[in-house]
Amino acid sequence: MSETAVGYAREQGQRFVSELKDLLRIPSVSTAPEHVGDVRRAAEFVAAGLRSAGMEQVRLIETSTEASQGRPGHQGHPLVYAEWLRAEPLPDGSARPTVLLYGHYDVQPAEPLEEWKSPPFEPTERDGNIYARGAVDDKGQMWMQVKALESLLKADGRLPVNVRVIVEGEEEVGGEGIAAFVREHGEQLKADVALVSDTEMFAPELPTLTVGLRGMIYTELEARGAATDLHSGMYGGAAPNPLVALAQIIAQLKTADGHIAVPGFYDGIEEPTPAELEAWGSLPFDEEEYRRHEVGSTALTGEEGYSVLERTWARPTMDVHGVVGGFTGVGAKTVIPARATAKISFRLVPGMKPEETFARYKRFVAQICPRGIQVKATLIHSGDPIVVSTDNQYVHAATEAMAEVFGKPTVFVRGGGSIPIVGDFVRELETPTVLMGFGLPDDNLHAPNEKFHLANFHRGIESIVRFLDKVGEPAKAGS
Amino acid sequence: MSETAVGYAREQGQRFVSELKDLLRIPSVSTAPEHVGDVRRAAEFVAAGLRSAGMEQVRLIETSTEASQGRPGHQGHPLVYAEWLRAEPLPDGSARPTVLLYGHYDVQPAEPLEEWKSPPFEPTERDGNIYARGAVDDKGQMWMQVKALESLLKADGRLPVNVRVIVEGEEEVGGEGIAAFVREHGEQLKADVALVSDTEMFAPELPTLTVGLRGMIYTELEARGAATDLHSGMYGGAAPNPLVALAQIIAQLKTADGHIAVPGFYDGIEEPTPAELEAWGSLPFDEEEYRRHEVGSTALTGEEGYSVLERTWARPTMDVHGVVGGFTGVGAKTVIPARATAKISFRLVPGMKPEETFARYKRFVAQICPRGIQVKATLIHSGDPIVVSTDNQYVHAATEAMAEVFGKPTVFVRGGGSIPIVGDFVRELETPTVLMGFGLPDDNLHAPNEKFHLANFHRGIESIVRFLDKVGEPAKAGS
Repeated sequence: MSETAVGYAREQGQRFVSELKDLLRIPSVSTAPEHVGDVRRAAEFVAAGLRSAGMEQVRLIETSTEASQGRPGHQGHPLVYAEWLRAEPLPDGSARPTVLLYGHYDVQPAEPLEEWKSPPFEPTERDGNIYARGAVDDKGQMWMQVKALESLLKADGRLPVNVRVIVEGEEEVGGEGIAAFVREHGEQLKADVALVSDTEMFAPELPTLTVGLRGMIYTELEARGAATDLHSGMYGGAAPNPLVALAQIIAQLKTADGHIAVPGFYDGIEEPTPAELEAWGSLPFDEEEYRRHEVGSTALTGEEGYSVLERTWARPTMDVHGVVGGFTGVGAKTVIPARATAKISFRLVPGMKPEETFARYKRFVAQICPRGIQVKATLIHSGDPIVVSTDNQYVHAATEAMAEVFGKPTVFVRGGGSIPIVGDFVRELETPTVLMGFGLPDDNLHAPNEKFHLANFHRGIESIVRFLDKVGEPAKAGS
Repeated sequence: MSETAVGYAREQGQRFVSELKDLLRIPSVSTAPEHVGDVRRAAEFVAAGLRSAGMEQVRLIETSTEASQGRPGHQGHPLVYAEWLRAEPLPDGSARPTVLLYGHYDVQPAEPLEEWKSPPFEPTERDGNIYARGAVDDKGQMWMQVKALESLLKADGRLPVNVRVIVEGEEEVGGEGIAAFVREHGEQLKADVALVSDTEMFAPELPTLTVGLRGMIYTELEARGAATDLHSGMYGGAAPNPLVALAQIIAQLKTADGHIAVPGFYDGIEEPTPAELEAWGSLPFDEEEYRRHEVGSTALTGEEGYSVLERTWARPTMDVHGVVGGFTGVGAKTVIPARATAKISFRLVPGMKPEETFARYKRFVAQICPRGIQVKATLIHSGDPIVVSTDNQYVHAATEAMAEVFGKPTVFVRGGGSIPIVGDFVRELETPTVLMGFGLPDDNLHAPNEKFHLANFHRGIESIVRFLDKVGEPAKAGS
């Protein structure tokens, strides 16, 4: 049946892109209080899309749970839910599998605005790409799911499997709302497999499944010194400086060769298998090319003795994302600020637990805190690291669907980023997850000039159609 | 003759304060491009005040010299000049001395605004103080000079000495404009002594002359890593992070015990004399009291083996004032910024040269720059450290004037801050400088809730009247 749906998708492709542009125009920046209304508008747009696709029980689910109240950056953005559970039974009378589709409609902030070649919320086509904040992460990829469902429902009048859809609006701020929903109302998302469209391909034209993700803890480290801001001329040499203290602490978190110095940090981490390392070794990856064209720095950093893929997929890291405090305007102000805060995150790999890592970090910064300074570490959000088993019918179905669309074998990779909900699906729902993504390495995720390759948008829809079809096939489902 | 002028000043005191409030309402923040017009309004206000005081040749002097063009933070704010050079000759026919009065009408930014108890540009009286940005630094003190001149001219019809006045609008951004003017047109400021009203008293009710100031270099250190902002999940562990690099560099600039690690940094510095150290030892200063009530931190920092007064007056230091780059909004963004900048300053003591210190620092940061990062150090502004000789008739006149007004002996101290123009007066004009200031240690200079004790405003006017009178007296001038 998928061929009719694929035909529909190809016919309607231009309209799908035009709708995506409408969605991209909504600045649904989940971390920004001033965009609360925009985030909700985006949720409503997605709900409308699901309704017109023919999905049922479409609704917004509010996320202001007790657990998520008062978390910094948490605005209580709604979930969008839809379902279609009327797939005809298998020949043996048993039910077809249920697939849970997941994506997110919120986006990262667009700053720094001056570096965008076209405005972040005015989607612009150039060279076969669509440029906008959220183009690939994740509005474009989430919209592929919606359009795959529409194609199947409009072309065939039904879906080959039972489907539930959950789309969140807080992925970029830690996903507290959906995590709480999964904990409290997990049965409403009951499924045999989850399909997550929020990852990327290893290289252009190379169909890719992601089978591992790093976890993370995102923290704020506050340092306080004097009771008020002081003049550095009058007090410099006697008053503690929180910005200097943060620098001293950060410098002690990671050694010059990239090793994290928090005691016990590496305890219990699971190394990739020799087979996995071998497979990574045969991926088309040129470190010098990556340095030059993807990173663009004079040298790469990180731990000695590990390849770049190991360092970004299978090794924990620490990064600083911003420092708040003091004078940051143009020119000069000679202030010793009373307080300053650094946004510091750690990426975690399988074998590490976010709570445990945070506790170790917190203990360590208290130990190394300089004289005259008081530090406070706050956990903003966290996500479990995960590894997906590749030996199941769903991964097989995805592998085949992508291989058919791209005309070459699908490769397995890991991702260095975190999709916290995947950990929750595994832990709370015991639902295996397929991470089938269509981004490209140069899509500028979280950066200025984010883009989505339009050919991949269309191939993504087709791959999802074929995947659902394969999962629904009796032979495959029973294999 | 000063008694009539003192009488006038006492009579008119309320009006003087009311005029000062009008001046304080003008947000003449010299570092902020959006306040260029306000800065000029403040200059015009000062010029009008000098004119109505009876000063002559009052005019604004533009400072957009070649030397100051294109400097970050430099807006080309005008100087205000005035003179009165008709003092009657001494009995022996020789000319009376010429006194150059110096102050500044620009102010520091008022941020963080939320910490002000009353708005920074709505001067408010509480408990005998006037609260406003610039109250003590330096509008209030500069206005004392203008009002002292007015009192003498209105009460006596003339001044006891020849007077030139130069008021600048760029003191808080490095004073490039006045420095260039002094270099290029120094003869227009020719004087026998400069009186600078921009310092503070050591303690309430303790008449104080400042006889030394630290110099400074204010720098921006830019670190660049990747070509664009990157996602810390995907690239963390391989891409260099400029914020981490800045932390690593800053942590290496100063050891944990406050010693600056830049090679050669301390070469050639002049220690205070044993007599000076002894005098400092007898000042009313309680380190624990200072820590608790003035700084308000759990401990003081700085070099071992030096008292707080030595550390803040006679030892060089390093401070960080702000870090620009990455994500500093509310919540979380997992970005590895392509670039970040730290505002870093060093305070210098006699024997150190700003250009030399900057060159050493620049060389050192290039040496310790982490792998994958490119650093660039820029000098934003600098000022020479100075020590004033206490053995001249002008310091004697100032000492006596203050002692008479306060009814107790005047003490000599140094200041930890920098007034760059004082170095220029000494170097370019060979004009000795008297630093007679009326601020108090808790006046919140450069911080929220800046204030000026109103009693000191009036005592300052009286002290300046008496000082000018004494400098003009034949017996004193010839002593």
